[in-house]
Amino acid sequence: MNIEQFVAQSEGTWRSMRSGHSLAFQQFEDVLSEVQIASVDQTDADINSLIHSSSLDESSAKVQAPFRMTWSAESDWEPDDPSEVSSGSCLIVPVPIDAQRGHLLRSLGYAEAAPAESTYCFLDDGTFVLTTQYEQSIAEERIWFVSEHVRCRSSVLRTSAGSGVLQTSFASEVRRLSS
Amino acid sequence: MNIEQFVAQSEGTWRSMRSGHSLAFQQFEDVLSEVQIASVDQTDADINSLIHSSSLDESSAKVQAPFRMTWSAESDWEPDDPSEVSSGSCLIVPVPIDAQRGHLLRSLGYAEAAPAESTYCFLDDGTFVLTTQYEQSIAEERIWFVSEHVRCRSSVLRTSAGSGVLQTSFASEVRRLSS
Repeated sequence: MNIEQFVAQSEGTWRSMRSGHSLAFQQFEDVLSEVQIASVDQTDADINSLIHSSSLDESSAKVQAPFRMTWSAESDWEPDDPSEVSSGSCLIVPVPIDAQRGHLLRSLGYAEAAPAESTYCFLDDGTFVLTTQYEQSIAEERIWFVSEHVRCRSSVLRTSAGSGVLQTSFASEVRRLSS
Repeated sequence: MNIEQFVAQSEGTWRSMRSGHSLAFQQFEDVLSEVQIASVDQTDADINSLIHSSSLDESSAKVQAPFRMTWSAESDWEPDDPSEVSSGSCLIVPVPIDAQRGHLLRSLGYAEAAPAESTYCFLDDGTFVLTTQYEQSIAEERIWFVSEHVRCRSSVLRTSAGSGVLQTSFASEVRRLSS
């Protein structure tokens, strides 16, 4: 698996079931959402500005398979409460080092709402592992395909100071074939 | 990572938060439970009878790091309803092929309540991957350590006939240091 194959396999609309675990409080949060992943043209101006504001060397950074992720979430606790619906969009720009590893820039981070720089690698079974150092925390995300139309996504958020694990999450995502 | 190190790291009492996702019905099930993992003596009579009733060759099967897993679950939906509390115990017997792969026998399966034969392997980052063929389904479980005292466990259950994914689950497990 390389990043181009991975993004190509991810493109489409996904129905996501996501469970968050707050370890300190032993609280669950279950969320249904829809996630859309669509490729972005390599000449898109937002890509250059994202690289420009990153720590990567603009002149040597070779972008591969940039994409946009759009999501709209609906908490299952209060399905009728519109304030529970959250949505957003994020530009994601991979900059490979080699076939297995690389950098990944995001216009919006997962744990903190600011641009984020991550490193990624693929495990030997094709599992995609993304590590992001935020100001206060470190996030590790894993994405693996169970079949062509089902993928799993886990995340672990820990304090950057020590090894304390703050929260985890797991999403089961099924491709919407009708859209 | 090999199976002996993995079992040694797993020994102890774990407080588990587990979320099950039923993909067809888009239903969540959140369960709090306690899981105990304790090593078992290699001469335990139950080990021999488990191997005897398996498809493995009794004369050549070399057992390593057998252990017993005991759990008591408490659904968070009806915390006051004693009928929601389920518990059980299971003998688990690894039979390595080499340092990375092997067979694993269980006195009780995960997806079906009968003895189960699995194969396991370790990914290059130490993630333990267990594959079990049941009569009606195939289960893939993954266990990885996030830190010494936190581990994650995911499972995917699919129909053995096709590639249909029936359900997934994810558990965040924190070691109980007081016990």
